[in-house]
Amino acid sequence: MKIPNPIKLLRRNKPQIDIEAVRHTMAHILATSVLELFPGSENSIGPAIDNGFYQDFEIVGNLSDKDLGRIEGRMREKIKEWVGFEKREIVVDEVIKLFPHNKYKRELASDFAKEGKDLTLHNSLNAKGEVVFLDLCKGGHVENPSKDINPDAFRLTHVAGAYWRGDEKNKMLTRIYGLAFNTREELDTHIKILEEAKKRDHRKLGSELGLFVFSDTVGKGLPLWTEKGATVRRILERFIVDEEIRRGYTHVITPDIASLELYKKSGHYPYFKDSMYAPITIDDEQYMLRPMTCPHHFELYLNSGTHSYRELPMRIAEVAKLYRYEQSGELTGLIRLRSFSLADAHIICADPNQAKDEVKKALDLIEFCADKFGFTMGKEYRYRLSLGDRGNKEKYYDSPENWTTAEDKLREVLKERKCEYYEAENEAAFYGPKIDVQMRNVMGKEDTAFTVQYDFCMPGRFNLTYVNQKGENQEAVVIHRSSIGCVERVMAFLIEHTAGNFPFWLAPVQVKVLPITDTQHKYSKEVFDKLITAGIRAEIDLRTESLGKKIHDAKIEKIPYLLVIGEKEMKNGTVTLESRELEAGGKKGETMSVANLLTKLSKENLV
Amino acid sequence: MKIPNPIKLLRRNKPQIDIEAVRHTMAHILATSVLELFPGSENSIGPAIDNGFYQDFEIVGNLSDKDLGRIEGRMREKIKEWVGFEKREIVVDEVIKLFPHNKYKRELASDFAKEGKDLTLHNSLNAKGEVVFLDLCKGGHVENPSKDINPDAFRLTHVAGAYWRGDEKNKMLTRIYGLAFNTREELDTHIKILEEAKKRDHRKLGSELGLFVFSDTVGKGLPLWTEKGATVRRILERFIVDEEIRRGYTHVITPDIASLELYKKSGHYPYFKDSMYAPITIDDEQYMLRPMTCPHHFELYLNSGTHSYRELPMRIAEVAKLYRYEQSGELTGLIRLRSFSLADAHIICADPNQAKDEVKKALDLIEFCADKFGFTMGKEYRYRLSLGDRGNKEKYYDSPENWTTAEDKLREVLKERKCEYYEAENEAAFYGPKIDVQMRNVMGKEDTAFTVQYDFCMPGRFNLTYVNQKGENQEAVVIHRSSIGCVERVMAFLIEHTAGNFPFWLAPVQVKVLPITDTQHKYSKEVFDKLITAGIRAEIDLRTESLGKKIHDAKIEKIPYLLVIGEKEMKNGTVTLESRELEAGGKKGETMSVANLLTKLSKENLV
Repeated sequence: MKIPNPIKLLRRNKPQIDIEAVRHTMAHILATSVLELFPGSENSIGPAIDNGFYQDFEIVGNLSDKDLGRIEGRMREKIKEWVGFEKREIVVDEVIKLFPHNKYKRELASDFAKEGKDLTLHNSLNAKGEVVFLDLCKGGHVENPSKDINPDAFRLTHVAGAYWRGDEKNKMLTRIYGLAFNTREELDTHIKILEEAKKRDHRKLGSELGLFVFSDTVGKGLPLWTEKGATVRRILERFIVDEEIRRGYTHVITPDIASLELYKKSGHYPYFKDSMYAPITIDDEQYMLRPMTCPHHFELYLNSGTHSYRELPMRIAEVAKLYRYEQSGELTGLIRLRSFSLADAHIICADPNQAKDEVKKALDLIEFCADKFGFTMGKEYRYRLSLGDRGNKEKYYDSPENWTTAEDKLREVLKERKCEYYEAENEAAFYGPKIDVQMRNVMGKEDTAFTVQYDFCMPGRFNLTYVNQKGENQEAVVIHRSSIGCVERVMAFLIEHTAGNFPFWLAPVQVKVLPITDTQHKYSKEVFDKLITAGIRAEIDLRTESLGKKIHDAKIEKIPYLLVIGEKEMKNGTVTLESRELEAGGKKGETMSVANLLTKLSKENLV
Repeated sequence: MKIPNPIKLLRRNKPQIDIEAVRHTMAHILATSVLELFPGSENSIGPAIDNGFYQDFEIVGNLSDKDLGRIEGRMREKIKEWVGFEKREIVVDEVIKLFPHNKYKRELASDFAKEGKDLTLHNSLNAKGEVVFLDLCKGGHVENPSKDINPDAFRLTHVAGAYWRGDEKNKMLTRIYGLAFNTREELDTHIKILEEAKKRDHRKLGSELGLFVFSDTVGKGLPLWTEKGATVRRILERFIVDEEIRRGYTHVITPDIASLELYKKSGHYPYFKDSMYAPITIDDEQYMLRPMTCPHHFELYLNSGTHSYRELPMRIAEVAKLYRYEQSGELTGLIRLRSFSLADAHIICADPNQAKDEVKKALDLIEFCADKFGFTMGKEYRYRLSLGDRGNKEKYYDSPENWTTAEDKLREVLKERKCEYYEAENEAAFYGPKIDVQMRNVMGKEDTAFTVQYDFCMPGRFNLTYVNQKGENQEAVVIHRSSIGCVERVMAFLIEHTAGNFPFWLAPVQVKVLPITDTQHKYSKEVFDKLITAGIRAEIDLRTESLGKKIHDAKIEKIPYLLVIGEKEMKNGTVTLESRELEAGGKKGETMSVANLLTKLSKENLV
């Protein structure tokens, strides 16, 4: 492959091997290998991504997962062969000459030119200084692939379809995904995490444990919760409602549909339009499935009389069903749904100082809940202070002074509690800055789980006022916050985090009573009845199966405690408690009286 | 007023004075009186209704509630003057001659003629045999108004607008409502009931007690529940969920929207179309706000594996949000809403015998709940056995044998429990007969509150089968039932039935702590904290108001118990418990230790 001499050679002075550069380089190496092995194919784009890279191709012939081994082999050869890159700026006409058959490169080049952006090309060089590959690319490679890339620290994982430019109207291309690290050890560790994550996938476990199902006839992104799943949800929802009430929240119930006028009044409509479903016309009025709760709570505040400063802060809370549009291709288990329930609240505060105090209390509640779920600050989650951009008046409400006050208050709260946090520009809500609780999943990927938002915009739009100590009407400040976030999403987190081993207080079945033989059935049923009366979620296994089989089956269900009842237990009025971690026939559990058992379990049930 | 002689005089031989006939006659007397007092006006129609009658008019001039007195006076004269009626059959042309200015009569006559129905006229006669009034009418009058109608046993109540033929595209007419009874005593009693009902109106009390509000911006028929109202709802919903679980129900959660295909599959769509809201298009699929839960539960059953006879009866329950279309004019407080929550269940049974047993258990549960609410069988409610019409294949699923089996089973259950019930033809669901729980409101009006329905149709449509003891697939029988019906409607019943004095376990605020002076604030707060810790919904009144004022305000809130704390109580570590019925300064309550108080209240809180 011969191309014209470079016009300009640029200095590359990366101080150390950057893993992003390794992954970016690997995308090129993947491209050249596939183009050689599948002659006539063309590549489109291929960036570095989390833990690896991908490259999209229009393939001539057939390429499947079976081909990944020989592509990897060719890639190892290329890694050894490539010793550097050279960059040069080019113009569109050259691209057309360089890539006569590649319409993707030509389309990209022509778009770049239209937007007035510079076009750059990178040549890959071998030890003889020959150009062995070239591609349109901004740069960001390792200096010398043969030295900087470990040929044993990458792996191609799978082939998938991907539309050109992500648009389903375009041609479907073939995407090859790969992992790449600096060391083989890192690669192996990551593969282990992947395998573990696959085992813990909440969709897989949700089905195995019988927590929820989907039905095509009911519709996409709309789970149906079985008895077990609904039990966990109910316990979870009651837990948060009760805890919030204990902390001075007033729990309300507002409708799941509302007039379009409401979202126009709140100003949400232009920002949220694309996430909302089409209106339903009722008697010439347009109604929407609600995408958020804020305006509902504000209307409740407005319609329940005038309010005095003595009533503030008023913490209006609701486990609210929300509806937001997701493309069917983006629906993912319980993580991305078309309808979900948010543990939401809007705290009407007298002023920024009261608001600051309420943000502090909201974080206290969030940390309390996270602790109950077994999530640790710094391990499973950290805070992010999401700031607005005062220059972007399209995206953010224009009120520079309020932005400063609000951001200062939030920053103060985070500093005072000496917690782990970082700041992120341009991540605020349109009505003010926020603190996001960034939760890491088992793959280490971070997502916003809960938020605490400062709002100085809605009070004006809705005329949310109260009568202050001087008897005057004063505008309130609002804190929007979620405590456990979306119930469905926290369920998914919990399933994956615990691998289905819910904490005792949340387990759908907490105890299974296992009589060893039929002789103990009557006594076992008595014990079972006592458990039920004590409010323990218990089951009893009266099948004529061996104890080993019974324990094995209960283990699959991940039931926290098994109560084994044999002759001895029946004679002594005791039970033998085995925890779910024990193997069938393994270490013996603890034998105790039924009274002690009930005390122990009731204590563990209190959250 | 002179008209041609009657062609045909018909015999009237009513054995006794029928109150319906009195009310029907009064509608004529109202018509003639108004036409005389407001010359040029025309009447349209005027039937007997519950407790009275009405008549619609196109009025020349102004008629308001202020005129009702003088209309009543004229009516009393007419009652004395009228001694009988004569009926004759007429043709349309005559109607045009008789009512030259009355387009309503002419329209009715022409419609009747088109439908091939006979047209009849009734002349009212005075003692001289003269015709003093005439109207199109099928008949149903008293024989002799001057003897059969008590001129002191009626009253005109109010004037309202009403569209001609109930169609809002037509002209708005003036409707005058009246009450009529056989005796003055009955009238007075009814007026007292009306006044009491007005005081107890759940819309009025709901607002006074701060239970819920409506917002025009949110939309019509969509209540927003305040903290207090939401508290009652939550207690109610948790009560029924827990009680059902105790009785072997499996509580699930299914989505509030579903694909239109689901309701086509269930066969509900053609029957329910007009009660459903317009579809929402999502990615080329049509989704509906669900009008019922049945198909959702069936899909859950189908999608959670095959089921064995050992799993049956499977009682799938949910407090489900439903959406049914109501015209805006028909929306009434919490009784007729656009969205409501139904305590619903579908019991998958092996066969008709198991179904019968489950119907029995469902009635047990209904009676248990009614008892908790303070509703008594035979007083507040009775059962109705609602039967299908085998001849009507449009309205009812065609399966005569199944109808017979199902109706027999339901009748057996009602007979065996020796309860108060009656049978009603043509009131079944399209898929089978049902037992309706007919609840009487404070006005004595009966409405269906809960139902237990037998369904032999859906199991076939959905292929709801189970593996029987022989290992074969067998079709199930389904029982649809509600336990406490619509949560909103039962709230309305409860508010009206108790006049806002919710039973202790349901009261939004159960106890209010009332220190007599500031000196007792600290001790009162300690008592208050103990109440909260014990799970009692308590408030404390720390205002610097007199005890009389504090008791007065708590009484308005209808709080079950007031805890008065003065010097003596503080010294002795006691409280004085006053119930909400006591007047300020009236009979002293019971003084008890805080420990005894907590025991007493916790016991009352258990339902």
